[in-house]
Amino acid sequence: MQDETLLMMPGPVPMPQRVRMAMARQAINHRGAEFGECLKDLNRMLKPMFGTENDIMVISGSGTAAMEASVANFCAGKKVASLVNGKFGERLFKISEIYAEEATEFKSEWGTPLPLEELEKALEEGTEAVTLVHNETSAAIKNPAEEVGRLCRKYDALFIMDGITSIAGDEVLADRWGADVTVVGSQKCLAAPAGLSAVSASEKAWENLAEKRPFYLDLAAYKKSAAKDQTPFTPAVPLFFAMREACRIIEEEGLENRIARHKNMAEAVRAAAGAWGLELFCQTDKFHTYSNTATAISYPDGIIDSDFRGAVKKYGIEISGGQDHVKGKIFRIGTMGATGIPEVLSVVSAAEKALRELGFKVESSGTEAAADVLKI
Amino acid sequence: MQDETLLMMPGPVPMPQRVRMAMARQAINHRGAEFGECLKDLNRMLKPMFGTENDIMVISGSGTAAMEASVANFCAGKKVASLVNGKFGERLFKISEIYAEEATEFKSEWGTPLPLEELEKALEEGTEAVTLVHNETSAAIKNPAEEVGRLCRKYDALFIMDGITSIAGDEVLADRWGADVTVVGSQKCLAAPAGLSAVSASEKAWENLAEKRPFYLDLAAYKKSAAKDQTPFTPAVPLFFAMREACRIIEEEGLENRIARHKNMAEAVRAAAGAWGLELFCQTDKFHTYSNTATAISYPDGIIDSDFRGAVKKYGIEISGGQDHVKGKIFRIGTMGATGIPEVLSVVSAAEKALRELGFKVESSGTEAAADVLKI
Repeated sequence: MQDETLLMMPGPVPMPQRVRMAMARQAINHRGAEFGECLKDLNRMLKPMFGTENDIMVISGSGTAAMEASVANFCAGKKVASLVNGKFGERLFKISEIYAEEATEFKSEWGTPLPLEELEKALEEGTEAVTLVHNETSAAIKNPAEEVGRLCRKYDALFIMDGITSIAGDEVLADRWGADVTVVGSQKCLAAPAGLSAVSASEKAWENLAEKRPFYLDLAAYKKSAAKDQTPFTPAVPLFFAMREACRIIEEEGLENRIARHKNMAEAVRAAAGAWGLELFCQTDKFHTYSNTATAISYPDGIIDSDFRGAVKKYGIEISGGQDHVKGKIFRIGTMGATGIPEVLSVVSAAEKALRELGFKVESSGTEAAADVLKI
Repeated sequence: MQDETLLMMPGPVPMPQRVRMAMARQAINHRGAEFGECLKDLNRMLKPMFGTENDIMVISGSGTAAMEASVANFCAGKKVASLVNGKFGERLFKISEIYAEEATEFKSEWGTPLPLEELEKALEEGTEAVTLVHNETSAAIKNPAEEVGRLCRKYDALFIMDGITSIAGDEVLADRWGADVTVVGSQKCLAAPAGLSAVSASEKAWENLAEKRPFYLDLAAYKKSAAKDQTPFTPAVPLFFAMREACRIIEEEGLENRIARHKNMAEAVRAAAGAWGLELFCQTDKFHTYSNTATAISYPDGIIDSDFRGAVKKYGIEISGGQDHVKGKIFRIGTMGATGIPEVLSVVSAAEKALRELGFKVESSGTEAAADVLKI
């Protein structure tokens, strides 16, 4: 739209009209039956997206709040291993440093395979909890949640999984993989407004509940209030209504269809990058694959990040650069949520034009390559 | 309106149309200039409501999150005295128990004057920080922030003031009173949606910044990001837009006018209670006065809380009962935010009719008494 920037970033993402309109309602008493119904609806609709039978607690706070809630409530006083190959893995490590008895980073370069053998050794030696970012958007790599879950089960460790940017856009099977605590953010594949997050916790997680917990992020208080269909503290009501509407849209699309669509969109962007002759940033292997919700592409020599993204923005489209030490080295395109074929075609065309404008000779048409993948 | 319940509770409160519509916008990149402008606008417009020159940090979380942020960031490892004469005073004490070196309650019955002499003795003996709820809606009493500030200054203690339900509806002069940390919630007198809170902190507060801080509620991270017109973590963007619109409406009304209007509305409800022959719940004295944003009225013998509030609800109006141990003993009417004369007349008329229906013989017309006070 002329008065809106098309966000093709790894979140936030454009929201469907129905989701936005759900926020414009008049205030209600959040201790009443209507809000209780909303909470129940969210619990019911989010469970299959998490791949869990455990109850889902929705937190009025961003994904980071839910990450902190997971670690503070269930990993306090433990030996925690944090798997890190990107910015959000680092964040989970930093949070673990606050609450864990001992927090250790198991680190590889951003976007490269994680040191799973080292992790197994640490588990043998008594690591009690492991944190993993399933879909690391800072590098657009999908990490091996199933394999990490297998290792955690083998050594009876708690598995904390950040599914912030995979849930509702990619396959997440928390229970089958053995993820004890799983987290999602609202403004990613759910295509809901920013400001909410949600957590599921297994029986085993609850058995490990910390005695001393934070107040606002005390998940035991959430559990207790959920029994009365309430939240322990004032919830961000308009965002809950919006997230329910977003979940309804996901139900209507069908989760399998949605996951297939996400996979298809990411494939299309990767096909475009290949056609242009550009390299994808992340390194895959048997366990690590490309993200199905975001794509990170390395800049060729001579292309300046701000010039490139500025040129794309002239077409009314916003994409992301790299974060921290990869700033200037990569650009990232998100293909999440309610965005579909038209939006992917737009961003690929704009990026291709921007590359040409900046003097890069593309090998072949990325637009055509993307379109070939996208056609239904 | 026929399809909406009129909320006359001590928050949440009805939102003006402009505030609600501000939420329905498409998602934007919260790392861009537009969101930065919104943050700057909020900082500028909230300062006079807080009565401070200090910067205001807006948190994506309810008032409780801001209360916790205040205590966790600035009172960790200290001797903290919590003044308690209601539910929210208790909450600040519970939070202090988590973070303080030593947390002590200075307690009186709900809605009765606080033990200020005992507080002074504790300050003499080395109390380093004091928490106070300025406007305690659980009992509809306004606590002596200025006097507590004076004591804190005298003994060089930090003063943490919860202004959640007074700011933007009653006079708050954080700097003049010596409040080092001051907190507001979005869904009270601001008449914005639930889900945001805001904190100001003095130079002295920053000098007392805890070394070990929570992650999501790390106010130092907020301060650092504010320098770039950003928040440290993903903000609840639609709520920020709505709160900005709510602040604009307050600017248009004029803060003094708004405070006078709030005072007038609360006086009208108290006048109605007096006309009916009912007692106000709280006890005032030289330092403690009636709340200007909420009124708590004691039930006469024979009136059952659920019957009464149910009868009021039949008129499409929701009021609050008592919380915890005063449940069933009082009812509470909020007169906050954008609600005005029509809404006050509605709630008083409905309450009067409900009292009659339940067999209580009102002494005289509360509706008329309220109308006498309300006329402009």
